[in-house]
Amino acid sequence: MKILGISHLGLAVRSVDEATKFFSGALGLPAGGQERVEDQRVQLSWHPVGKSRIELLEPTDPSSVVARFLEKRGEGIHHVCFIVEDIKGALKELQAKGIRLIDEIPRKGAGGCQIAFLHPESTHGVLIELSEESKI
Amino acid sequence: MKILGISHLGLAVRSVDEATKFFSGALGLPAGGQERVEDQRVQLSWHPVGKSRIELLEPTDPSSVVARFLEKRGEGIHHVCFIVEDIKGALKELQAKGIRLIDEIPRKGAGGCQIAFLHPESTHGVLIELSEESKI
Repeated sequence: MKILGISHLGLAVRSVDEATKFFSGALGLPAGGQERVEDQRVQLSWHPVGKSRIELLEPTDPSSVVARFLEKRGEGIHHVCFIVEDIKGALKELQAKGIRLIDEIPRKGAGGCQIAFLHPESTHGVLIELSEESKI
Repeated sequence: MKILGISHLGLAVRSVDEATKFFSGALGLPAGGQERVEDQRVQLSWHPVGKSRIELLEPTDPSSVVARFLEKRGEGIHHVCFIVEDIKGALKELQAKGIRLIDEIPRKGAGGCQIAFLHPESTHGVLIELSEESKI
C-alpha cells in the first residue's frame, strides 16, 4: 500500500464556532468551510494547512463517537487521516497482515471520499482513517 | 502569523522498535531515521509522509512528559507540530492575543529547529508545537 500524505487531522471540540476563534482567529488558519456529516454525526469545520487540513468535529448527537471521546478525554486530537492510492487494496493488505479494521469495506466520508478506519488496538492507540481522494 | 504546513505528528509509544513494525512494516511509511532528543527525554523515530512526517516518541526517562502521557492515556497521538515562518513573531502575536504558552522563548528541537509549545488550556486540548525550519 502507498500513503501519499496526511489528508487531515480530526480534532474533537465542544463547539466548532468557539474552536474556530482559536484556529482561525489566533493561529490564522483559513476557514475552508463547514459540512454536516450525518454518517459520523458531526458538524465539521475545515481549515487548510499546507497540503493538509485541520477538521474541527462537534458532535450533533450525544451517542456519537466524537461525543463519547469528549466525555472520556475532553477536547483534543481525535484521529489522523492518511491519503492512500487504492483504499480497497490497502484494506486487503492490512487485513492480510493481521491489522484489525473498523471498516472492512470503504464508506463515504466528508467531501465524497472513500474512507475506512483502522482499529486503535492494532495501531498503537492512534485512530487512523484512510481516505482515497480524487487528487492530492 | 503564518502557518506553512504540518511539520509532524508526534505519537507517544512504549517502544519505538515495536511501533515501527506497524508504521513502516504494515503501513509502509519509510524509516527516516532515529534521534535521541535529550531535552525532551525521548528516543525518536521519524517517518516521512507526504510533506510531513510521523514521529514515534519513546520515553527515555520515567518522569518525562511522554512517559507521563503514556501512564495517563496510553499510546496515541501526543502533539501536532506546525511549521511557522517566524517563530519569535508568532509567539509574541499569540501572547498578545491571550494564548497561554509553555515556551515563551523558542528552544532547540530535533534536527536543530527552533521550537515552542502552546499550552493545551488555550488550544482546545490540543498540544501544539510551533517550529521554524530552514525550509519546508
